[in-house]
Amino acid sequence: MNTTHPPSDRTRVRRGAVNAAYEPELVRAIVDAAYICHIAFSDGQGVHCIPTACWREGDHLYIHGSNGSRMLKQLMAQDACVTITHLDGLVLARSAFNHTMNYRSVMIYGRFEAVDEVEQRSTLDTFMDHLAPGRRFEVRGGNDKEHAATTVLRIPLAEAACKVRSGGPNDDEEDMGIAAWVGELPFVQLRTAPVADPDCEAAAPAYVREWASEP
Amino acid sequence: MNTTHPPSDRTRVRRGAVNAAYEPELVRAIVDAAYICHIAFSDGQGVHCIPTACWREGDHLYIHGSNGSRMLKQLMAQDACVTITHLDGLVLARSAFNHTMNYRSVMIYGRFEAVDEVEQRSTLDTFMDHLAPGRRFEVRGGNDKEHAATTVLRIPLAEAACKVRSGGPNDDEEDMGIAAWVGELPFVQLRTAPVADPDCEAAAPAYVREWASEP
Repeated sequence: MNTTHPPSDRTRVRRGAVNAAYEPELVRAIVDAAYICHIAFSDGQGVHCIPTACWREGDHLYIHGSNGSRMLKQLMAQDACVTITHLDGLVLARSAFNHTMNYRSVMIYGRFEAVDEVEQRSTLDTFMDHLAPGRRFEVRGGNDKEHAATTVLRIPLAEAACKVRSGGPNDDEEDMGIAAWVGELPFVQLRTAPVADPDCEAAAPAYVREWASEP
Repeated sequence: MNTTHPPSDRTRVRRGAVNAAYEPELVRAIVDAAYICHIAFSDGQGVHCIPTACWREGDHLYIHGSNGSRMLKQLMAQDACVTITHLDGLVLARSAFNHTMNYRSVMIYGRFEAVDEVEQRSTLDTFMDHLAPGRRFEVRGGNDKEHAATTVLRIPLAEAACKVRSGGPNDDEEDMGIAAWVGELPFVQLRTAPVADPDCEAAAPAYVREWASEP
């Protein structure tokens, strides 16, 4: 499904609209680069912003948790907003107010729904493959009791808005003579050397040996 | 202020309570390690989860934006939840359901308030020092028009709950014979080589030369 969804009233970006984008490919790329999302929802005590693990399958974002989770119960009863943000750098400009940041973010609006037991088992395999490809064949899979105690929810990616900024600063013409260093101070999410448990006796599989971004 | 605030009804952690903590020093450390937070709030269209730049001064978290920002207007009229999450690693266990993640997170509940013009000027200096210490003496500072178009809000850190997990997996006794590799696949937020703007003619100051985590 590569159709570009037109922005809804909730997803049309007003602030910094020049950085807004709605392409499904971009939504998927930002979701796929994430291990966690932040979810806003409300209950009798007000609004909450809770971080939780997430993964994508097709055109849905998935989360999971205990059946007893207050958040999961609320999410099936109301619309929520799921946000993923990757911070890529600080942008240093010639004037204080033109400083900004580079980032890739997506906000997804909609209603979560629970998946049935068959899809739960299948998509939890997808989740494990997202974390460590192939590992699900090496560990003990979920048993009936574990699956029965777990809820998997999914939300469609249909109502989503991205904001992305990259590159250097946009200074005002009258500030161009200011002799300050200007450019980007970048971040990357570096994968560092795996730390084996003290009682680990198994050899490292490929996804562990190849984990670290640099040797 | 080093008093430990007892958890409120909103901040008492129920899920994974073994990882919960409420110490102000920890709240401050997690906030200080962040450049952005996610804020949950609601309006006539439902709940929103918006990422925005943040910084700390004393026992408050600060954000800023345009006077016209819908979010800032809403935040002065209702309680919000501000969440910061640092993802530190994936934790690989011997059974699928014991996989988890290592992280440091804080959730802050309360009401934002606008600061006056004097505090706005002073705390935007603090913000700049958080991004690039000393840079505010090198760039053009905000003029009256820029300051007048900007709102700075702060929320007290008093009602906050942290969750922190570190270390290896907690496997069940009956799974200890499974011969899978177990341990942590860590992440770090690496600061990489600064990218000067093509038209930058100024020498790199210390905070630029010393930006990258590794030479």
